[in-house]
Amino acid sequence: MQELTISLNPQSRTPLYEQIYRYIKEDIKRGRIRAEEKLPSSRALAAYLEVSRSTVDLAYEQLRSEGYLEAVPCKGYYACQIDGLYQLQPGTGQRERPVSCGESTYDYDFTPNGIDLDSFPYEAWRRITRNILLNDRKELFQLGDPKGERELRETICRYLYQARGVNCRAEQILIGAGNDCLLLLLSAVLGTKRRIAMETPTYRHAYGIFEQLGFSLCTVPVDGSGMQVQALRESGADTAYVMPSHQYPLGIVMPIKRRLELLAWAAEEEGRYLIEDDYDSEFRYKGKPIPALQGADRQGRVIYMGTFSKSIAPAIRISYLVLPERLLQECEESLCRFSSTVSRVDQMTLNQFLKEGYFERHLNRMRTIYGKKHDMLLGELKKLSDLCRITGENAGVHLLVELINGMTEKESIEEAARMGVKVYPLSEYEIGDPGWESSQVKGPAVILGYATLSESGIVQAVERLKRAWRRE
Amino acid sequence: MQELTISLNPQSRTPLYEQIYRYIKEDIKRGRIRAEEKLPSSRALAAYLEVSRSTVDLAYEQLRSEGYLEAVPCKGYYACQIDGLYQLQPGTGQRERPVSCGESTYDYDFTPNGIDLDSFPYEAWRRITRNILLNDRKELFQLGDPKGERELRETICRYLYQARGVNCRAEQILIGAGNDCLLLLLSAVLGTKRRIAMETPTYRHAYGIFEQLGFSLCTVPVDGSGMQVQALRESGADTAYVMPSHQYPLGIVMPIKRRLELLAWAAEEEGRYLIEDDYDSEFRYKGKPIPALQGADRQGRVIYMGTFSKSIAPAIRISYLVLPERLLQECEESLCRFSSTVSRVDQMTLNQFLKEGYFERHLNRMRTIYGKKHDMLLGELKKLSDLCRITGENAGVHLLVELINGMTEKESIEEAARMGVKVYPLSEYEIGDPGWESSQVKGPAVILGYATLSESGIVQAVERLKRAWRRE
Repeated sequence: MQELTISLNPQSRTPLYEQIYRYIKEDIKRGRIRAEEKLPSSRALAAYLEVSRSTVDLAYEQLRSEGYLEAVPCKGYYACQIDGLYQLQPGTGQRERPVSCGESTYDYDFTPNGIDLDSFPYEAWRRITRNILLNDRKELFQLGDPKGERELRETICRYLYQARGVNCRAEQILIGAGNDCLLLLLSAVLGTKRRIAMETPTYRHAYGIFEQLGFSLCTVPVDGSGMQVQALRESGADTAYVMPSHQYPLGIVMPIKRRLELLAWAAEEEGRYLIEDDYDSEFRYKGKPIPALQGADRQGRVIYMGTFSKSIAPAIRISYLVLPERLLQECEESLCRFSSTVSRVDQMTLNQFLKEGYFERHLNRMRTIYGKKHDMLLGELKKLSDLCRITGENAGVHLLVELINGMTEKESIEEAARMGVKVYPLSEYEIGDPGWESSQVKGPAVILGYATLSESGIVQAVERLKRAWRRE
Repeated sequence: MQELTISLNPQSRTPLYEQIYRYIKEDIKRGRIRAEEKLPSSRALAAYLEVSRSTVDLAYEQLRSEGYLEAVPCKGYYACQIDGLYQLQPGTGQRERPVSCGESTYDYDFTPNGIDLDSFPYEAWRRITRNILLNDRKELFQLGDPKGERELRETICRYLYQARGVNCRAEQILIGAGNDCLLLLLSAVLGTKRRIAMETPTYRHAYGIFEQLGFSLCTVPVDGSGMQVQALRESGADTAYVMPSHQYPLGIVMPIKRRLELLAWAAEEEGRYLIEDDYDSEFRYKGKPIPALQGADRQGRVIYMGTFSKSIAPAIRISYLVLPERLLQECEESLCRFSSTVSRVDQMTLNQFLKEGYFERHLNRMRTIYGKKHDMLLGELKKLSDLCRITGENAGVHLLVELINGMTEKESIEEAARMGVKVYPLSEYEIGDPGWESSQVKGPAVILGYATLSESGIVQAVERLKRAWRRE
């Protein structure tokens, strides 16, 4: 072959070498240039196309490196047999509906799961990610430490000490892509031959994952202070899963007395552990923040779980476990079985975000924003004191509303839906026996998450709830 | 308070408003400005500092949004009670040693786990990530579809059809952060009341995770074509885990006859499945690529697993499952229990990387690079034909080397180590009875991965192996 009639467009944003590369690749793919066929010399093609020889060389080199051409020394370039090469064409993918775990077509959605992302410092996050992705950081694309990046664990360690009173070394921290991953790791460290006590109502998601992982589970009722210790003792469980900072969904803040009782229960027998899920403790609006249960643990009985899903963004997918020292040995052994579940670039981005002070600022800004929404919702709901009672306030990003208007839970949700407002049933969080009947919430109740609604949205939504719950 | 003596540095790269912000924040933190204290008006402070009023306004607004100041209408700014605010100080984190699952101080390491990242298109990845992170994409920080982003699943679907002959719809694809996460999802879809047959030797990592998840396991010997079907039938397993494209670690490519026998086994009884782990099928150096087992499955019995760990980078942490249609119903139900384990930004970045053709180019480039290393290692090892025999060639990024020089596996590894070369024991991949004794590898053998070594490194390392295995 002596000539390749390639019509080049010098005005195009695609560089000339790339145009030549694409043209020849296409010709080889379509069989217009056959395997074993010799290509024109780069000098000849450059002269013919009136481009510099280095332009053609660049195109040939690219084709060679991708296996379309073969360079035979002193002879030139030949087209290769390309049956085995990858050729991805854009196809005509049909659209599909997303997995919908309850779809929403409401005007106002009090979802307890979303967060407010209007104030997220996107520019800072983008800049940090860009810097992390510099060319000379290629080791970040090799597999990292199964525990997570050391730098990030050290930063989290400092944050936990200052913000949550958690005492730990970076060695005790395990990073994972969300709670599902953490609980999988935990099952490897603890073994699944355990009986885990959970409160009822509780965070159902964790219950489901524990069940999936093959743990034996039981439920323990709560009172106004949280998990009932006597009932826990009688349950035969050796592990208890609690949320002392802000129980989900009841919103109970566990007082120090109950915390000490739980720690005493754990110390009674070898092998007992408390799993402290501190999922939304960053947001507290009245009084001083209450340190984590872990900070009061002198016996190494608390396994602490934290997440950046609430405090930064759910899609960040970075959570962490803090293991007691006594479990580190087992951990090192079982971890060789696992790979880290978070990309190193993401870990390093988060690390920089924390170290450069953006997390601190973001948290304080969000606390102000959520605090206002919290006060707004509380204020509006108080006008409905003939219809409902509020619990679980002063922390987190959801409230619990107990109905006293004679409606059942189902009715109250349906009436709200009729007015275009989505509220969430407390009963969905109950497990097994309705243990909560004997606890602080006596009647039907719904959960109102306020993170994703605007302040004016909250006012309007509560106005609609009033009409709904009065059956107007 | 009427004045704040802030010494501003107009030459600093820190903007003036930020200098004011930091100064006042520091003063509030240290108690130099006390809670409830009134700050100078922005007009007065601007005049005093000789900066524009908007500069001071910006600093005050920042402090207010983070909860350090409170704005009282018609009165001005007051310092807040800051006990509850987050204040992260850089600490003096002590260094720790990373989790070492076997540390390396060798001159040449034939690790089968690394990949060659020199040719990774960092610039393209960075540019795509930057574009994905644009301000108007804030929905990417909310929790996404538990199955993974629809766009990415559609793109993977097309890739699998074209490159691997896998027939599926995007609905059948589940995205997860590495194999551990995928197997956790799989256990939710299949239930753990299953008996999984694995080859021996096999990919131990998967064995460990299955064990962790509570599956019952058994091993089935392999012959030159892969898993022995009669032995599988006798094992009582209802699920078989195989790697037809390139068995790990033996490197066997399963011929079509054995594939059809396995599919026939699966079709014999309701509820039987084949898990096809196609971990490194992208790399094949001789002949046409062999389509995936999934493509030959007409009964919906194959669960296909793929990963971008080998083909892009381990730290990307994106893998995927392709479920048969018949399992989709179960999947939808169990998935509401899980959250996606991969950040949406990473998923969208990968999607763009695939769609813009970078993946295709990268794969073809890497195939050329690995092909050369493969040929180089093969050529060098052939000079050692008095010492060892090679199997598992023509695909993947590792070879199996059977020793015929009278050394035990342990001796051959120790002698290699003495020469500064790390090779990996085959016996580590055996499970239970040494089933492989009756299979194609008769004697002691070691694994040589060549992805991370350079071509000249391979030559030098094999030269050392020659001396080691001759006890020179």
